[in-house]
Amino acid sequence: MPIESHEVRLASRPQGAPTAENFSFATVEVAEPGPGEVMVRNVCMSVDPYMRGRMNEGRSYVPAFEIGKPLEGSAVGRVIASRDAALPVGTHVLSFLGWREVYVAAAARLQVVDVSRAAASAYLGVLGITGLTAWVGLFRVAGLKAGETVFVSAGAGAVGGAVCQLARLHGCRVVASASSAAKVEYLREELKVDYAFSYLDGAPLDHLRRGAPEGIHVYFDNTGGPQLEAALYALRDFGRVALCGGIANYNTPAPGPRNLTVAIGKRLRLEGFIVSDHMKEMPAFLAEALPALESGRLASRETVVEGLEAAPGALMDLLHPGAGNVGKMVVKLAE
Amino acid sequence: MPIESHEVRLASRPQGAPTAENFSFATVEVAEPGPGEVMVRNVCMSVDPYMRGRMNEGRSYVPAFEIGKPLEGSAVGRVIASRDAALPVGTHVLSFLGWREVYVAAAARLQVVDVSRAAASAYLGVLGITGLTAWVGLFRVAGLKAGETVFVSAGAGAVGGAVCQLARLHGCRVVASASSAAKVEYLREELKVDYAFSYLDGAPLDHLRRGAPEGIHVYFDNTGGPQLEAALYALRDFGRVALCGGIANYNTPAPGPRNLTVAIGKRLRLEGFIVSDHMKEMPAFLAEALPALESGRLASRETVVEGLEAAPGALMDLLHPGAGNVGKMVVKLAE
Repeated sequence: MPIESHEVRLASRPQGAPTAENFSFATVEVAEPGPGEVMVRNVCMSVDPYMRGRMNEGRSYVPAFEIGKPLEGSAVGRVIASRDAALPVGTHVLSFLGWREVYVAAAARLQVVDVSRAAASAYLGVLGITGLTAWVGLFRVAGLKAGETVFVSAGAGAVGGAVCQLARLHGCRVVASASSAAKVEYLREELKVDYAFSYLDGAPLDHLRRGAPEGIHVYFDNTGGPQLEAALYALRDFGRVALCGGIANYNTPAPGPRNLTVAIGKRLRLEGFIVSDHMKEMPAFLAEALPALESGRLASRETVVEGLEAAPGALMDLLHPGAGNVGKMVVKLAE
Repeated sequence: MPIESHEVRLASRPQGAPTAENFSFATVEVAEPGPGEVMVRNVCMSVDPYMRGRMNEGRSYVPAFEIGKPLEGSAVGRVIASRDAALPVGTHVLSFLGWREVYVAAAARLQVVDVSRAAASAYLGVLGITGLTAWVGLFRVAGLKAGETVFVSAGAGAVGGAVCQLARLHGCRVVASASSAAKVEYLREELKVDYAFSYLDGAPLDHLRRGAPEGIHVYFDNTGGPQLEAALYALRDFGRVALCGGIANYNTPAPGPRNLTVAIGKRLRLEGFIVSDHMKEMPAFLAEALPALESGRLASRETVVEGLEAAPGALMDLLHPGAGNVGKMVVKLAE
């Protein structure tokens, strides 16, 4: 029996910050699954800063969203009808099919998640692509070692929060920035970073000098812009930068770092990465992260909004400096 | 018997481009060598863009020149008095003691060069630190491989010219920029690069699209500034940038690349280096470069000025966009 579903589509491409007019809602009928397929009702969906890039025309590092089609992104759902023995009804699965309530897909395209060990939403965040992004950037790209000092921008965001926690678990000193006093408080009190500051309150470089008087070994860059410039000054000789995101540039381009020349004398290495190149690391990452979450050494902090209708607002909020979200932004759809 | 020598000293620190007033000339008496020392009369001295950075106050990647002291730099000279059996009179040696005619130094601090296989001045250029810089940047930092395409800015300069030739010797396609029509002609006719352009004539990115329609694998950056920005756009996925010099920023700071965010999606790696970290590679480099020079596959192009008095002007000229020098700038002092 076909089932009714709702989805969020891209209505038009934003100029600068996205607005409600850039999104539309649609009701669709989802047909029953064929052989080898399952029908899934999403339980929770991920809202991520990189989605802003995909709203633009042309190539970001992942293809642009198409106008009139649902926005893509990761979601965890429950199988509600199955024509594949590997995924019986009740199984929880991770998909990258985006902002819709119900879908049908080939079982082989979905990844089972164990909701007995952690909440479904954790697999969107600290145990999912978000956590893997932090882990790959720190340890595979930047080569962070125990005892080193790392600076992370947007530290109270989903990836940033995972960076803070994973770096501390590895015996590193952590300096983190955020865009509001509430987020700074969260970094200090909940994530226990060694030094936290708001990048809107004083010069970032002054904070880095205070938080890391002997300089930083690694900068995990979620923003680009003035914080990257400050980090280049604060990096020690042979420092490394993992270029992960450029949220400062997503809505409106920021000027480039005027001091890239310091990378010569300090022999700095700046390296961009995309987590999808590193999916084979997921088992190694989970072997570390899942026990850490279960034992309480790793926290999964989330900002949860309810219902499909709230999804566009959640994304708009996420892209706004000083926004209210802390940790992973999740849309809850069903139990 | 003491001997009279002349030297060039830093008189004051330049604001922007250096002028004649920033230099002074002095006559000194050089005492006879003590045990284990030799007296050397310089034959030729090197003039290098990085010297501009050392004229500033404070730390560049090498210490600042001191006011009232001779400018430091590399030179090849002939031993004219010896108290060390390893360096008899007549031996040619490379030093880093700078812009002076005669000096006394411990024999152990000097490096013998074989002037029977190549001219003394070649050891300042394509067989010396200049050539090693190109080699290390291409093969050790950027990991250039046969069949790849490399773009080098300031390609008609000393390091740039070595980059062009070494890359071609390794079976790579070479795109090079320069600052005048004469230099572009030199790149095309003498260095046989695949595509050469003046960065003052049209947008660098348009030239890169023409010279490397499928993009570049490696950018050897001698300039920073707008050419770095263009290169970031032209680089292929997993491209590498060897950050070697920032001549665009030496006299007046240029804006930073506004597009560093492309490094994320393209997984670019930008890495600064200093040749002095890689001196142990000199034998491996010379094993390749010396036979190539002797067989004519590697050319040592020089712009030679005569006499110590001409040295400050040679440096000022080198830093001027569109300057007349091609290849290595050398001051000739004696036969």
